[in-house]
Amino acid sequence: MKFLILGHGQLARMMALEGQAHGWDVLAVDVKHRCVVDPIRKVKVEGSLEYHVQASDVITAEFEHIPEDLVHQADETGKLFPRASSFLAAGNRLQERQMLERSEVPFAAYHVVEDRLSYDLAIETLGLPLVLKTVSDGYDGKGQFRLMSQEQVESVWASCSEAMLTSGALLAEQWIPFKRELSIIGVRSRSGEWKTYDLGENTHHKGILHLTEIKRVEPSTEQQAKAIFKAIAEELDYIGVLAIECFEQEDGSLLVNEIAPRVHNSGHWTQQGTLCNQFDHHLRAVAGLPLGDTETIHPTTMVNIIGVDQLPDAVEALPGTRVHWYGKTCLPGRKMGHINVSASSRDILCKTLSQLSSLLPSEDFFGCHQAHPSCLEL
Amino acid sequence: MKFLILGHGQLARMMALEGQAHGWDVLAVDVKHRCVVDPIRKVKVEGSLEYHVQASDVITAEFEHIPEDLVHQADETGKLFPRASSFLAAGNRLQERQMLERSEVPFAAYHVVEDRLSYDLAIETLGLPLVLKTVSDGYDGKGQFRLMSQEQVESVWASCSEAMLTSGALLAEQWIPFKRELSIIGVRSRSGEWKTYDLGENTHHKGILHLTEIKRVEPSTEQQAKAIFKAIAEELDYIGVLAIECFEQEDGSLLVNEIAPRVHNSGHWTQQGTLCNQFDHHLRAVAGLPLGDTETIHPTTMVNIIGVDQLPDAVEALPGTRVHWYGKTCLPGRKMGHINVSASSRDILCKTLSQLSSLLPSEDFFGCHQAHPSCLEL
Repeated sequence: MKFLILGHGQLARMMALEGQAHGWDVLAVDVKHRCVVDPIRKVKVEGSLEYHVQASDVITAEFEHIPEDLVHQADETGKLFPRASSFLAAGNRLQERQMLERSEVPFAAYHVVEDRLSYDLAIETLGLPLVLKTVSDGYDGKGQFRLMSQEQVESVWASCSEAMLTSGALLAEQWIPFKRELSIIGVRSRSGEWKTYDLGENTHHKGILHLTEIKRVEPSTEQQAKAIFKAIAEELDYIGVLAIECFEQEDGSLLVNEIAPRVHNSGHWTQQGTLCNQFDHHLRAVAGLPLGDTETIHPTTMVNIIGVDQLPDAVEALPGTRVHWYGKTCLPGRKMGHINVSASSRDILCKTLSQLSSLLPSEDFFGCHQAHPSCLEL
Repeated sequence: MKFLILGHGQLARMMALEGQAHGWDVLAVDVKHRCVVDPIRKVKVEGSLEYHVQASDVITAEFEHIPEDLVHQADETGKLFPRASSFLAAGNRLQERQMLERSEVPFAAYHVVEDRLSYDLAIETLGLPLVLKTVSDGYDGKGQFRLMSQEQVESVWASCSEAMLTSGALLAEQWIPFKRELSIIGVRSRSGEWKTYDLGENTHHKGILHLTEIKRVEPSTEQQAKAIFKAIAEELDYIGVLAIECFEQEDGSLLVNEIAPRVHNSGHWTQQGTLCNQFDHHLRAVAGLPLGDTETIHPTTMVNIIGVDQLPDAVEALPGTRVHWYGKTCLPGRKMGHINVSASSRDILCKTLSQLSSLLPSEDFFGCHQAHPSCLEL
């Protein structure tokens, strides 16, 4: 089977590696240069984009900010999974909110900000604090502005109006005081079968995901998460792996923050933590195969490697530790790889994370150092 | 880090897939055509063999029958691991026996057969039954002749003398009545650290491995296996993954049958059954990295896919089941891929294997159908 992935970054690469084990040929589209590459070895392959769109059996994507003409070109072949509507809903925060409304899942109250009048109205309607986000183009905390108090109204307006020049409208949302951010990652097959993985608790630093831990959650939280996944996946008639970021509030209720119609950084732990990881599962689902297992086979924590391209050799020697590098050029703040740490028990996992954090500088591995003190709560 | 693997079959391919996760570039040598290929996508890469031998950081191999000039060319760079002596010992049954003698490990009595005189002497010295094997070029049961009774002496001599025309001398060995064949697979690092995986029990059919199961073994058998691994690996000053096939006799004692200085088909179960599989471990060891884990994390059985290139979709839906295809052209008797079945308990594994065998034709999947009735012994 031939797969074509829109986007050629690490997510395409990890899907291609899984696809190879199935004997599938997985190629990727460099969306900027409109050419087709081998996402594993990052070399251009022969044949035009049009040729590969025709030659592939299944087309999918590794990100949601794909130029619309390309989404439509792929969709017209009938081979794009998930469907164009899923990408369009996730690539635009306003359409995403409208989809969440139709799904009848809980999310924060919002107001569209297009000018000073609607900015003032948002403050009046929603109250402070607020968070303002560009409707399109936002990721890893970019294009977001916090308005915490009345004193900031003018300075934040200045930033917002500047952002609006390039990104169009903003969405103002109620600031939600939350206990933690949880990722719901699940998969839905072409036949409508769906499964979710265990919830991941995410630690961010400077807007970038640093750590995902699979912590114990209340059964009621798990039920809410499954209901949210089912509602959104069915509303979108979604096919493939879908990630949903939620805020867990003090009372245990979940509010949806955003969705990603693809495999997600907070699901990388499934490579070592489950028998059928998110990359494998996405390809299976879009190819029309039955779903595999989503059960956690052993406690696993994922530590992102950000802005560094070397680790001490001793990291590899830690029991249950597996480093994944993406083969990218090192830049400050860039996701260069991740470390999955698995263990037969939470106690042993905690001990290994403690050893790991002692090998890694705290300035680069904020999440890992955060994990250690809180590890006993796992 | 750049790796060059001598040989470009499925073992090189699976090593390359593991290497990618480490961010390593793994290329392979098509030994017959003396060119360098990407073992994942099977495409030729630019640059001469000489160029890649120079450009690589580490050279290793996926098989032992490498032309000697190539082994020496690689060894002269100082980058070949394991060392040339390990390949030369394993690629020739006589040198292998001499190495086993030096290692002081138990193996069957043997006699070199070069002519009719030595053939008759072997029969006289060792008694019947006997097995005769070509000194070089044998694999998957090829180049082997059984001499069970006096009546066969002339007909087997006819086959042997014909084989000697192309393959040179033969080795006559005592026929060992054995309970089962066990694989010892282990890894030794450049610093001399070594670890073994759990013993695999192999089921062959028509000379080809069909099934590897990780069954319970007596602690004394495990101790023998570890002692054998240590003795051979240290005698060879071996670096990397080493596979040792043994016969377990009725009294529980092990006799070494043969060694393979590489990852081995009977170790494919480690992909799903351990946190650091044999492919990953081989690359780590030859690269000079510390060793990872060899513990079995859940019971896993490997079923070879031989001579067929399609499976029912329902196979993928079985819990804990992972299919690995090698992307090869289908030929009768050819190893096309394998299926790893993992479960949280031996009972569940047994149930899944039973479901799996009901989906697969018994003529092609002899081993899997064999596994089911004996599964409760696991």
